[in-house]
Amino acid sequence: MPLGKYIEEADASPEVRAVYDDIKQTRGTDWINNFWKMIANDPKTLKRTWEDLKEIMAPGALDPLTKELVYLAVSITNGCEYCTVSHTAAARKAGMTKEMREELIAVIGMANNTNRLVNAYRVDSDPKFIEAASTL
Amino acid sequence: MPLGKYIEEADASPEVRAVYDDIKQTRGTDWINNFWKMIANDPKTLKRTWEDLKEIMAPGALDPLTKELVYLAVSITNGCEYCTVSHTAAARKAGMTKEMREELIAVIGMANNTNRLVNAYRVDSDPKFIEAASTL
Amino acid sequence: MPLGKYIEEADASPEVRAVYDDIKQTRGTDWINNFWKMIANDPKTLKRTWEDLKEIMAPGALDPLTKELVYLAVSITNGCEYCTVSHTAAARKAGMTKEMREELIAVIGMANNTNRLVNAYRVDSDPKFIEAASTL
Amino acid sequence: MPLGKYIEEADASPEVRAVYDDIKQTRGTDWINNFWKMIANDPKTLKRTWEDLKEIMAPGALDPLTKELVYLAVSITNGCEYCTVSHTAAARKAGMTKEMREELIAVIGMANNTNRLVNAYRVDSDPKFIEAASTL
Amino acid sequence: MPLGKYIEEADASPEVRAVYDDIKQTRGTDWINNFWKMIANDPKTLKRTWEDLKEIMAPGALDPLTKELVYLAVSITNGCEYCTVSHTAAARKAGMTKEMREELIAVIGMANNTNRLVNAYRVDSDPKFIEAASTL
Amino acid sequence: MPLGKYIEEADASPEVRAVYDDIKQTRGTDWINNFWKMIANDPKTLKRTWEDLKEIMAPGALDPLTKELVYLAVSITNGCEYCTVSHTAAARKAGMTKEMREELIAVIGMANNTNRLVNAYRVDSDPKFIEAASTL
Repeated sequence: MPLGKYIEEADASPEVRAVYDDIKQTRGTDWINNFWKMIANDPKTLKRTWEDLKEIMAPGALDPLTKELVYLAVSITNGCEYCTVSHTAAARKAGMTKEMREELIAVIGMANNTNRLVNAYRVDSDPKFIEAASTL
Repeated sequence: MPLGKYIEEADASPEVRAVYDDIKQTRGTDWINNFWKMIANDPKTLKRTWEDLKEIMAPGALDPLTKELVYLAVSITNGCEYCTVSHTAAARKAGMTKEMREELIAVIGMANNTNRLVNAYRVDSDPKFIEAASTL
Repeated sequence: MPLGKYIEEADASPEVRAVYDDIKQTRGTDWINNFWKMIANDPKTLKRTWEDLKEIMAPGALDPLTKELVYLAVSITNGCEYCTVSHTAAARKAGMTKEMREELIAVIGMANNTNRLVNAYRVDSDPKFIEAASTL
Repeated sequence: MPLGKYIEEADASPEVRAVYDDIKQTRGTDWINNFWKMIANDPKTLKRTWEDLKEIMAPGALDPLTKELVYLAVSITNGCEYCTVSHTAAARKAGMTKEMREELIAVIGMANNTNRLVNAYRVDSDPKFIEAASTL
Repeated sequence: MPLGKYIEEADASPEVRAVYDDIKQTRGTDWINNFWKMIANDPKTLKRTWEDLKEIMAPGALDPLTKELVYLAVSITNGCEYCTVSHTAAARKAGMTKEMREELIAVIGMANNTNRLVNAYRVDSDPKFIEAASTL
Repeated sequence: MPLGKYIEEADASPEVRAVYDDIKQTRGTDWINNFWKMIANDPKTLKRTWEDLKEIMAPGALDPLTKELVYLAVSITNGCEYCTVSHTAAARKAGMTKEMREELIAVIGMANNTNRLVNAYRVDSDPKFIEAASTL
């Protein structure tokens, strides 16, 4: 059971409604998903989270699909169910095919595996990698 | 300090050397990084991990750069230092620019943030998202 | 489905009942919540966990509300549903208002975000901070 | 080794310098810590993160010390070294005493413990707690 | 709701069926559990995961029960519900008694606790332990 | 750098010294490792943690080696360096051979992998497993 009430558009304050309107316009939809309707209980967090997300997920040096795949990888690693469902849907809308999803999941599983092999042996970073990684 | 000795090529058993040779040939390099030299203490895990990784990270429906970005996102989320350094280097080699990395890091931070907003309110998955996510 | 049976007071051994009685007396309630009824399957863990918790959560240099907020922050970060529900209820009982909860959730989200920005760049600790943190 | 260069004030672009100035003025200090100097490599993330943090960590329904304790609890749970050092220092500056820190650490340890006891038995949320938690 | 369809044996491709047959033969059962029926959506991951698991979980220097207890400890720490249920069942089949499970859960809880006490104080590794751990 | 001072035996209060003496006697050693010397800054947590650990890690239905392997699996999964080093040393002392450690690490890596495959597909628990797991 959710720990709060969903704020429907009809019941939203002007402040909340303004964010809902921007979400709908930005996404070209007339539908608000549960995440926003729940965090609307805290209008400041609603506004801040939406503005951050809009800026971060906009197409840039990385395309929207790549960003959704990364979002999904983090959500799966953390075990967040809502996030996994919603970002699987979003990634699909952004063009993720069945084959892409399969490869994505395989990479996520493998990374979580080798992260622990490294933890077990406390492997030292290779100077060559440190140099390449720190001079980007 | 690493919890094991690095197995240098000169000291490697034929079984380990065969994996090292395949790594070098597949990657077009004559250099073996510390991760492999450490897990070579367990030749079966070395072989299995390398073969899995070679299959999973090969170009497919997702290109190598996208796979490296996902690997890095998981490693940063889990706080694995070696993995972050080595996959930042690998992503760079696969074409990650400074701008791509900045956007990647912003997405990772944001996903880790909203994962917890969702956890706090225990938001229900939207039926529309469940349907889209489960019929891929 | 829970992976065990809830031990109701009527079915409790004297050892378990003694802990239940102490829980009820300490909390000024006549009700035992599911967590205790489940771990009562292991009377030693029940006793140890309750005694630890009673000592740790008692008012001290930190007041009970602050302790509940911290408990909730950990539980949300780890994605533990039962813990999030029960400690949201406990924090509320200890005085957490709607506004406090909103701010708490915002801090938790932000901390989980910046923890990963730090992981991505492997930022060095500032000597000034190390000194302040280590001489408390 | 950090995976990037620290942007010193002397080398900062006007955009970065404006954030640095706001940090210094808001905090009443003339010193910028490594976190900001590192994420300044990405001026948009620097600006967004600082503005979010300034809003979230300002005194409100929760006082600054409580917010720092929560930030620290998340950072310790996630195992982020820089974050643990810097927020221990910040919490101390906000008034955390030795006794408060000891109690904080005990609560964090205990919460991480009982989160797993709950995971092991998959305990059901008590209806009474769900109601209290969802009607805040 | 699962994010995919379970591939029943009757609907399986020859490639998937071969893995199912090996699972049944190896385990001496005529039943395939949901995990395999779901990842069968990606036959390459099904095959790779099964072959890895068969190799890793086979009796060796560690007996099958010890391996199941370790698998369960990781799954409980990560909060994975399916994994906790299925590996509790598997451990039980491999000989885990009620008493063993209680002690296992106590160790898992304690380890998650002390891991955070260590994170909070950033304790240095003892040279004596480093030496013992690195010369195995 | 550690965020506190190590309390050496010579400087310990009678309360702390009593715990140190019990550690030494229980373990048959005359040496106190850094973990205890650090949490001795908080004598109540020192006492409580030691008494819990002594009870939990004593031989019982699970032998000491199995308990150490589980402790290590949790510590590696959580990425705790001190804990990984110290429990690798402790497991070795309790009889862990090189082969056991290799198999342990392989199981840990695999469990962290499949935990995420399950998260990605949100696999339903099999009724057969739920029954076996809940009637222990």
